[in-house]
Amino acid sequence: MNKRLHYFISILTTILFFSCTQKQNASINLLPSWNNGNAKQSIVDFVNDVSKEGSANFVKPEDRIVVFDNDGTLWSEQPYYFQLQFALDRIKAMAPDHPEWNSTQPFKGVLENDTKTVIESGMKGLMEIIMTSHAGMTTTEFDKIVTDWINTAKHPKTNKLYKEMVFQPMLELLDYLRANGFKTYIVSGGGIDFMRPWVEEVYGIPSEQVIGSSGKTKFEIREGKPVLLKLPEIDFIDDKEGKPVGINKFIGKKPVAAFGNSDGDLQMLQWTDGGDGKRLMVFIHHTDAEREWAYDRESHVGKFDKALDEAIANRWTVVDMKNDWKNIYPYEKK
Amino acid sequence: MNKRLHYFISILTTILFFSCTQKQNASINLLPSWNNGNAKQSIVDFVNDVSKEGSANFVKPEDRIVVFDNDGTLWSEQPYYFQLQFALDRIKAMAPDHPEWNSTQPFKGVLENDTKTVIESGMKGLMEIIMTSHAGMTTTEFDKIVTDWINTAKHPKTNKLYKEMVFQPMLELLDYLRANGFKTYIVSGGGIDFMRPWVEEVYGIPSEQVIGSSGKTKFEIREGKPVLLKLPEIDFIDDKEGKPVGINKFIGKKPVAAFGNSDGDLQMLQWTDGGDGKRLMVFIHHTDAEREWAYDRESHVGKFDKALDEAIANRWTVVDMKNDWKNIYPYEKK
Repeated sequence: MNKRLHYFISILTTILFFSCTQKQNASINLLPSWNNGNAKQSIVDFVNDVSKEGSANFVKPEDRIVVFDNDGTLWSEQPYYFQLQFALDRIKAMAPDHPEWNSTQPFKGVLENDTKTVIESGMKGLMEIIMTSHAGMTTTEFDKIVTDWINTAKHPKTNKLYKEMVFQPMLELLDYLRANGFKTYIVSGGGIDFMRPWVEEVYGIPSEQVIGSSGKTKFEIREGKPVLLKLPEIDFIDDKEGKPVGINKFIGKKPVAAFGNSDGDLQMLQWTDGGDGKRLMVFIHHTDAEREWAYDRESHVGKFDKALDEAIANRWTVVDMKNDWKNIYPYEKK
Repeated sequence: MNKRLHYFISILTTILFFSCTQKQNASINLLPSWNNGNAKQSIVDFVNDVSKEGSANFVKPEDRIVVFDNDGTLWSEQPYYFQLQFALDRIKAMAPDHPEWNSTQPFKGVLENDTKTVIESGMKGLMEIIMTSHAGMTTTEFDKIVTDWINTAKHPKTNKLYKEMVFQPMLELLDYLRANGFKTYIVSGGGIDFMRPWVEEVYGIPSEQVIGSSGKTKFEIREGKPVLLKLPEIDFIDDKEGKPVGINKFIGKKPVAAFGNSDGDLQMLQWTDGGDGKRLMVFIHHTDAEREWAYDRESHVGKFDKALDEAIANRWTVVDMKNDWKNIYPYEKK
């Protein structure tokens, strides 16, 4: 064969090879931590249907918005929301500067690990803990506090970092959706400032695609430098009816797919379902007491009751963690 | 020459040609509506400096966030904000269902084109006009109302659609920045719901990159379908100190460049300037009474006074519309 021809053919073959393998890999390694079954099939069918040009249900890439709850959907949330553990740890770290806390509830209860008293302090006590731990510093200072915590704090049951207790099947799903042109958003009841410092590293979701609850901030010039001070005042609660409100406020488009795990996500799924064209609504059902936790209708954290009824009535997809997921956490991956 | 070789060479040449011309076009047609001068130079220098890999001031693409005010920065704002004209037009369109407005201010003034009385109704009257015209319907209904208006309403002076009165040099700038990996955001005191229906078509900015003032919304199920109802209640004012607050809330990153035109943008530019690394702060100075409007320190709309002093003191870039811009509006483009 002509030498130059051979040379050009190799270049072209290389180009073709790389573009083909990229596509092939996507299907060969498709969601490896998901067992074959209805849940996986409904996701794959949806993605193929809306992302294939010429399909009757084709959705333009700019409209492929998909939203994920965080607590209980992308990472665990037991025995209570990880952000609450952050708040309790923070109160303990601040205690040396607050001797009065040794005799004032709910702080006394926190310092003495007296969970019962803390819980009995009710919503008022809890808000005091959240506001004290999440306000009174600049956004930059809070960012550093969260970053330090997420890189060191460990869960009492697994002895793993909280950020390691994310769901491997969901990480694969996020990658799979992005590979098919979807823009992945978090829409969480958790704090927007609590999530942003680490979700890009862990989930590949940039800060501008994170929607969450927030406190008010105040712009100030401090020693010639502009800062945003975190105030002890609620700005927005991104839960239940707040989720569609937050989606509309931050994105201004209806998602085509939504993933949640509790009654707090019901309105987000209803809002998604209400759009025109093909939609995908998925709930993660925590059914694995051995590898994670099993809870639903009676749980204080991540209660899944009314939403479970609606999912069944509407034939939305319900992921059975125990049977649908081969792996739960990345560190257990076989 | 071997026929097959010839064939492969043509393919490769075509590929190379297209990738090269794309890059060349970017520099040949660089900001054609901008006259050469300090303003254009400072923008081009900044873009080259932060987007060139290996540069000491290199900024990763995911951090290339650039924010633009809308009124007076991307489109005109005289004799008063175009959104106010929308509100007045809306009141007139709603009037047949409100006979009581014929005898109630500020509505009576609006219906009689009695601008003086409307202005004298003060902030309270103005808020009544805004709330009446911007609330009491679903977000979907409001979207349609805005879309209809923006595609038909004409400016009394130019007799052009308001959406045609955008600044050609700024359209070129938006394209140029995006071609260099920047993510372009609007951060406006104007209403987020008023901008989103048309800014993608006009500026190429998708709804999720629009930050603005907003009213509260309420999630409801209406006849089995989920809707968001627009309430007559302020949620957020994205002006002055509100602009850095909005940027932090929606994006969670500091911009590397900011464009404004009035005192309402000062804090946004200060916030941008306060970040680490190289930054670009630009004010558009309305100096062209003939082709647009000339106004600054004494203007009721787009007052540019304190911000002008700060721009001079900080050596930020100030665009002199009359001398720096070859064209103002796209329809005048030579």
